[in-house]
Amino acid sequence: MTKIAILGGSGYTALELIKILLRHPHVEIAAVTSRQSDTPHLAELHPSLTGRLDLRCEPFDAERLAGRGVQCVFSCLPHGASMAVLPALLQRGLRVIDLSADYRLRDPNVYAQWYGESHADLTHLAQAVYGLPEVYGDVIATARLVANPGCYPQTGILGLAPLVAEHCIEPRRIIIDSKSGVSGAGRTPKLATHFPECNESVSAYQVGKHRHTPEIEQVLTDLTGEPIQVLFTPHLVPMDRGIFSTIYAVPRRPFSEHELLEMYRSYYVHAPFVRVVEHLPATKDCAGTNFFDVTVRVVRDAIVVLACEDNLVRGASGVAVQNFNRMFGYDERTALI
Amino acid sequence: MTKIAILGGSGYTALELIKILLRHPHVEIAAVTSRQSDTPHLAELHPSLTGRLDLRCEPFDAERLAGRGVQCVFSCLPHGASMAVLPALLQRGLRVIDLSADYRLRDPNVYAQWYGESHADLTHLAQAVYGLPEVYGDVIATARLVANPGCYPQTGILGLAPLVAEHCIEPRRIIIDSKSGVSGAGRTPKLATHFPECNESVSAYQVGKHRHTPEIEQVLTDLTGEPIQVLFTPHLVPMDRGIFSTIYAVPRRPFSEHELLEMYRSYYVHAPFVRVVEHLPATKDCAGTNFFDVTVRVVRDAIVVLACEDNLVRGASGVAVQNFNRMFGYDERTALI
Amino acid sequence: MTKIAILGGSGYTALELIKILLRHPHVEIAAVTSRQSDTPHLAELHPSLTGRLDLRCEPFDAERLAGRGVQCVFSCLPHGASMAVLPALLQRGLRVIDLSADYRLRDPNVYAQWYGESHADLTHLAQAVYGLPEVYGDVIATARLVANPGCYPQTGILGLAPLVAEHCIEPRRIIIDSKSGVSGAGRTPKLATHFPECNESVSAYQVGKHRHTPEIEQVLTDLTGEPIQVLFTPHLVPMDRGIFSTIYAVPRRPFSEHELLEMYRSYYVHAPFVRVVEHLPATKDCAGTNFFDVTVRVVRDAIVVLACEDNLVRGASGVAVQNFNRMFGYDERTALI
Amino acid sequence: MTKIAILGGSGYTALELIKILLRHPHVEIAAVTSRQSDTPHLAELHPSLTGRLDLRCEPFDAERLAGRGVQCVFSCLPHGASMAVLPALLQRGLRVIDLSADYRLRDPNVYAQWYGESHADLTHLAQAVYGLPEVYGDVIATARLVANPGCYPQTGILGLAPLVAEHCIEPRRIIIDSKSGVSGAGRTPKLATHFPECNESVSAYQVGKHRHTPEIEQVLTDLTGEPIQVLFTPHLVPMDRGIFSTIYAVPRRPFSEHELLEMYRSYYVHAPFVRVVEHLPATKDCAGTNFFDVTVRVVRDAIVVLACEDNLVRGASGVAVQNFNRMFGYDERTALI
Repeated sequence: MTKIAILGGSGYTALELIKILLRHPHVEIAAVTSRQSDTPHLAELHPSLTGRLDLRCEPFDAERLAGRGVQCVFSCLPHGASMAVLPALLQRGLRVIDLSADYRLRDPNVYAQWYGESHADLTHLAQAVYGLPEVYGDVIATARLVANPGCYPQTGILGLAPLVAEHCIEPRRIIIDSKSGVSGAGRTPKLATHFPECNESVSAYQVGKHRHTPEIEQVLTDLTGEPIQVLFTPHLVPMDRGIFSTIYAVPRRPFSEHELLEMYRSYYVHAPFVRVVEHLPATKDCAGTNFFDVTVRVVRDAIVVLACEDNLVRGASGVAVQNFNRMFGYDERTALI
Repeated sequence: MTKIAILGGSGYTALELIKILLRHPHVEIAAVTSRQSDTPHLAELHPSLTGRLDLRCEPFDAERLAGRGVQCVFSCLPHGASMAVLPALLQRGLRVIDLSADYRLRDPNVYAQWYGESHADLTHLAQAVYGLPEVYGDVIATARLVANPGCYPQTGILGLAPLVAEHCIEPRRIIIDSKSGVSGAGRTPKLATHFPECNESVSAYQVGKHRHTPEIEQVLTDLTGEPIQVLFTPHLVPMDRGIFSTIYAVPRRPFSEHELLEMYRSYYVHAPFVRVVEHLPATKDCAGTNFFDVTVRVVRDAIVVLACEDNLVRGASGVAVQNFNRMFGYDERTALI
Repeated sequence: MTKIAILGGSGYTALELIKILLRHPHVEIAAVTSRQSDTPHLAELHPSLTGRLDLRCEPFDAERLAGRGVQCVFSCLPHGASMAVLPALLQRGLRVIDLSADYRLRDPNVYAQWYGESHADLTHLAQAVYGLPEVYGDVIATARLVANPGCYPQTGILGLAPLVAEHCIEPRRIIIDSKSGVSGAGRTPKLATHFPECNESVSAYQVGKHRHTPEIEQVLTDLTGEPIQVLFTPHLVPMDRGIFSTIYAVPRRPFSEHELLEMYRSYYVHAPFVRVVEHLPATKDCAGTNFFDVTVRVVRDAIVVLACEDNLVRGASGVAVQNFNRMFGYDERTALI
Repeated sequence: MTKIAILGGSGYTALELIKILLRHPHVEIAAVTSRQSDTPHLAELHPSLTGRLDLRCEPFDAERLAGRGVQCVFSCLPHGASMAVLPALLQRGLRVIDLSADYRLRDPNVYAQWYGESHADLTHLAQAVYGLPEVYGDVIATARLVANPGCYPQTGILGLAPLVAEHCIEPRRIIIDSKSGVSGAGRTPKLATHFPECNESVSAYQVGKHRHTPEIEQVLTDLTGEPIQVLFTPHLVPMDRGIFSTIYAVPRRPFSEHELLEMYRSYYVHAPFVRVVEHLPATKDCAGTNFFDVTVRVVRDAIVVLACEDNLVRGASGVAVQNFNRMFGYDERTALI
């Protein structure tokens, strides 16, 4: 049994994490923190948890968490807030899975450029492991600090990894056109996510400027050794959950679809949550699951990859538990199937 | 040509009003006011108006509106704010259609009880006409101040008017179960109307406590002379627009469906926007229109009325224009068909 | 380990059942039948099952199922089709949970009246147990044939059971106004459930004529001994899942909300899936779960019960597994929490 | 006053066309045909037309339409069916606007290749004018037969026209990633458009194989003289209406966004329905209108065009009326603003 704590309990990733962990036979949720001053009961924040987890949120206190035997902390805090509190936990020997973006970008200058503030914890940044099990599975097992990957980046990275690793495509002519459900925007009400504004509408946002761009490029570059450049366009579509990414790449030589599908199957043969499918996938088929569905098509002289996932499970809390399972020696699939 | 102004331009009823009035051949939109300090262009507030109305919002100034020859003002301000500014317009001889609730309830004590504040303009309250053309059509024509009806109340009142006027039902055993799209909650972002909260969900709110209750009862009581009491339950359903009300009443003697449908047809024979239908209506059939669709069923010993409308058009801005047409001598249907 | 089979694998209740049973540690899904002649692989019928259950549909063959050691059969066939094949299984000693309506109504005349055909299996009808664990839990444990309850009826029955059992309300003045997501209409494409028809719309259907009416009345009458009569109005709302029922009843004497909530808590103290809540529930809070959320309000001289559930889990496949657990001696909650 | 007829009255484009034409001061809808044998009243096919157009569908009869003085026929028949009946009308001197794909592709071999059948009316195919007013406005005015453009193609063509006409981009490296609401799939119920299948889901379909591809290429090639090749990927998103196209192109020399926006504004200066906007557009902003909203961004070394429209109005019936207005000498905007 592993005692865990969750920081930042009021958002959607925390809620999803709690629901997954309630099904984990080897986890005890010892504490959930919140920055709200009134320490609400979890069921007040999330009525769906009524009768499922009798816990009141508490203020963050590293000493207290350590003293209660918490071994692993999941941070669902926003970027900036996360790197402000995680050092205190790491220094006390707790292992951390950070769902924010704070420890994802290896180069602090890139972080400063895209997130608009200096990185505040260079020590641990240098030790952080990017938590994509299909790519960094081995080092995740022994990591002290896992930077859980972003929702969009996973679709781009897992969708392109076989092609990039095998040097099949032009490294600087990649387009990732992503369509996301609204829960990806978080739980804070804004005009853009007010129901009558975004329902019955599709729009693009942060075209060419989204912070997930360097994250995708960093990992794909790792995979191939040569600098990868992507043009990433996120869109908002009127549904709760799911990301669908349509990825366009230019092959270095002609490929058949059959050849590419075989390459993907081979690449992901040991990845229990990646499903290389022949049909065109739909986000609904992986909604609420940790599966990542992907297929490949050859259209004229281009390769088109079609990939989808649930943004809250596979894109955040599910993969966090997958990382947790690897870190603590449980079967990777525990609580996720 | 009639010059009009709109107060409170940033919300959904103002947007809908502008779209309708842009089609009105005898209206010039002379001014739109906003309480925002930066006097935004209308297209900034409402991108859908880009290229359709080249107007910058201005602060409210009664003198200035009067000086520019504005003859009629539509107030889309929230309750409380509306009665704070309308007297200045009425004193200057402008006619007013108030889309807020401020002048709907005849008795200021009832207003205070349900809206939690004293009424601030008793003078004009006494002169206000409730703007439901199918009930008060004649007095609307000469009114200086029209209290535009609420969205829910119209479904309850128009749905029950024939039964109540003809003394067909028990006056204190009426249930109105209403289902509304989310735009009815206004344009200010809140957690309850944040897309991932209310999408894929149905819920009730303000059960037995909704402010539209006394409005319905006042008008139905007017129609019959005896005190009418309704149990009103509003629900939120995941769609942009539309209200569907299912109304349950106890007949004083047995009726056939045929008899009731004839009674409804006869009652609304001169109402161009009320469609007495034989099929079960759906909100989609009146979406974006000023139509009110209604039918009646007899189930065992009860009468069930099924009624629907578009909450922003028929429920607010469309009926406001219908009132305007009556007030200024235009065909009631102008800009609405 | 219990071997089970599922009849009628192509619909939504079968899909949901499979997903739940894949998490059940003591169940082996031995066979899924389909009336389609081409024996499709399950992943062809339901792409979301890709990689999760490697099974091809087979034609129904009672002898073969018995020969393979199947102990329990879940029938997801439509009414009529179910009673045509279940006798062959029951005669061979298999236990059956029938998700159709075929064995729910005790009186074959009532069945004939509402379903338009004579009952074809009077023998087993007489032995069937209505599968609502909160009401008939004890007899379910030993039942050979469980008639799994309808989705709407559960909201009406569980929502009213405490009031009816304690004789608190007038037995013939009950109104159940229900709002259902579209998956309740099944998986066969029809105009009424074509996306652009039912999206962004609310409508009522089968007003006063819905087949779930006698089912609700039968069980509530069982609970109190005196004939219960309900006026039931189903509505279609644009969401995938969930039923919200607003129930109106007339108390026989005045009650306080506190008193009623206590009565509900006490009545359901041993029901792990019924959550008596104080807040107004929302279907989203029980989406994808086997929970049934209910609260009570007193409005003027009426009692208003607000209840919701997931129509596919609690309303069909979840409660089927809850029944299965009771029948085979597993913890009632297995695979459902 | 111009008498018109509509062929194929049961679908969404016919419904939309009727709603627009009911607002046209110079149009009389003389007949609506349907292939259904029972000649239903329009209000039976489309309840939203109740009380708005008292017309019963009739079987197609060219002689009869001509005899009643019909001058213009809008065909809302599917491809194949349209070219089977239109010759009889054209031979009788009626002018035709065909909303199907039958007369859009100039080369009958291309038609045969993409639509799987030989073209049946080569005579009129040679005379047909592609009905995109912003490109072929002058010839439309005198055309006898207008091939109304497809919904997707308009977004690709209008989105790229300025760039292609000015030779700004590489002609064979164009990607059009389109997201469409479900009404684009027509009104015939299918599993793919069954609400619980496509709601809460995004998927791609006909990747690289969609029939609108050659239509886009034909017109863009017209505009520039050199062969244009596009990679077109359509997606289905859960909303009623709207198409959002994200278009990626490779510039032949560096451009600034300002320069490109000026180029677009200049190109469309006389196009009342094309709005070149600076903000990122959203389909909701043109929902229910004939507007086409477009903007341009420069991202690293690529040009990204973001364009949207209402697929039923601008994408079909609205542009059909725009064409009609040009053909019959009415102001292009009549009934469309």
